[in-house]
Amino acid sequence: MKNSNTNENTYVKKVSYNPKSPLNDMRTFAIENNVPIIGDEVLRFLEMQVTIKKPKSILEVGTAIGYSTVAMLLNSEAGITSIEKDEKSYEIAKSNIKKMGFEKRAKLILGDASEVLLEMGRNKDRHFDFVFVDASKAHYLEHFKLIENMLMNDAVVIFDNVMYLGLIAGRRSINRNKTIRYRMQGLIDYCFDNPRYKVSLLQAEDGLLLLYKR
Amino acid sequence: MKNSNTNENTYVKKVSYNPKSPLNDMRTFAIENNVPIIGDEVLRFLEMQVTIKKPKSILEVGTAIGYSTVAMLLNSEAGITSIEKDEKSYEIAKSNIKKMGFEKRAKLILGDASEVLLEMGRNKDRHFDFVFVDASKAHYLEHFKLIENMLMNDAVVIFDNVMYLGLIAGRRSINRNKTIRYRMQGLIDYCFDNPRYKVSLLQAEDGLLLLYKR
Repeated sequence: MKNSNTNENTYVKKVSYNPKSPLNDMRTFAIENNVPIIGDEVLRFLEMQVTIKKPKSILEVGTAIGYSTVAMLLNSEAGITSIEKDEKSYEIAKSNIKKMGFEKRAKLILGDASEVLLEMGRNKDRHFDFVFVDASKAHYLEHFKLIENMLMNDAVVIFDNVMYLGLIAGRRSINRNKTIRYRMQGLIDYCFDNPRYKVSLLQAEDGLLLLYKR
Repeated sequence: MKNSNTNENTYVKKVSYNPKSPLNDMRTFAIENNVPIIGDEVLRFLEMQVTIKKPKSILEVGTAIGYSTVAMLLNSEAGITSIEKDEKSYEIAKSNIKKMGFEKRAKLILGDASEVLLEMGRNKDRHFDFVFVDASKAHYLEHFKLIENMLMNDAVVIFDNVMYLGLIAGRRSINRNKTIRYRMQGLIDYCFDNPRYKVSLLQAEDGLLLLYKR
């Protein structure tokens, strides 16, 4: 967890950083411009899961500057559809993906994820076998309910930051965070209670929720 | 981490426990008899990784009472070879695996892992696509070096407890633990430094090290 600040945290961060990663220009840009990107522990894990799963068709909710997008493209042969609501981020992501030579494998969509996912769901032929959700934490369950019908059997879904700032466990129960907290618990309960899914919740960085559709 | 005792820890444990799991008789036996078994967070994760990977041939170092062995058998169609040095544990594991009807898919070997792995390595036709190591922490690197040549391409290896009691990060640097600490760092460095492997280190429970052979 970001707040616990243990020695392990420092150690894991240190060894997880890859000085030879082709993503490092984007990483530096993100740090210098205060753009939130996935940390090195989650990056390594995402690369690993994509590598093991070998997906054909990835959906990403929350492109930001395309850092995790490029990571997934580098570690698979999949095509990727990625949704971003912020126009400035969308343009930067587009440029980053072009710079890496991935235009043909990546379809970036500018728009509100709920609206875009609803529209995609109407188009019955869109099916994904790997999904990475790293967008507005208050809308994870809403987004997931729109994504569910677009999941192939054997699909893997990863949600990042499900225990953001310890919200889940009530460490910061100030009022303005209560909605996010309840909604995130709602997502986790929804997944664990559903016999269609195998679920794994991990205390890595700000919490990862993994889901497998039987 | 076991020592940090955060609210997240409690929360993750609570939601990860599966009251309907066919493993629960073994889980109860382990708790009542102080047998160390993987925690619910790691169990869920191991089940997930086996499910995604769909291995054909699993190697396990450290059977204990066969809890993780049965978990992997339940979540795959693989055959499994599992090594245990303690005769009493070996007998209990054998009985547990028989009770679950998995005798035909599980080969339990009683013996010292280093000796057994060395012998298996001589037999060139033994190849594994999934390995779970949960044995003597002081011997992880030694074991891994014996396992390496038995790994198929695309194989996944998971080491449990690589940050046991925070040893890695120096939280408990009392003398008797120093050897384990240095050896575990040696394992982690060895894996991260090797271009043949993709590696992911996770702060789940007592630390998980994941490795993928290119």
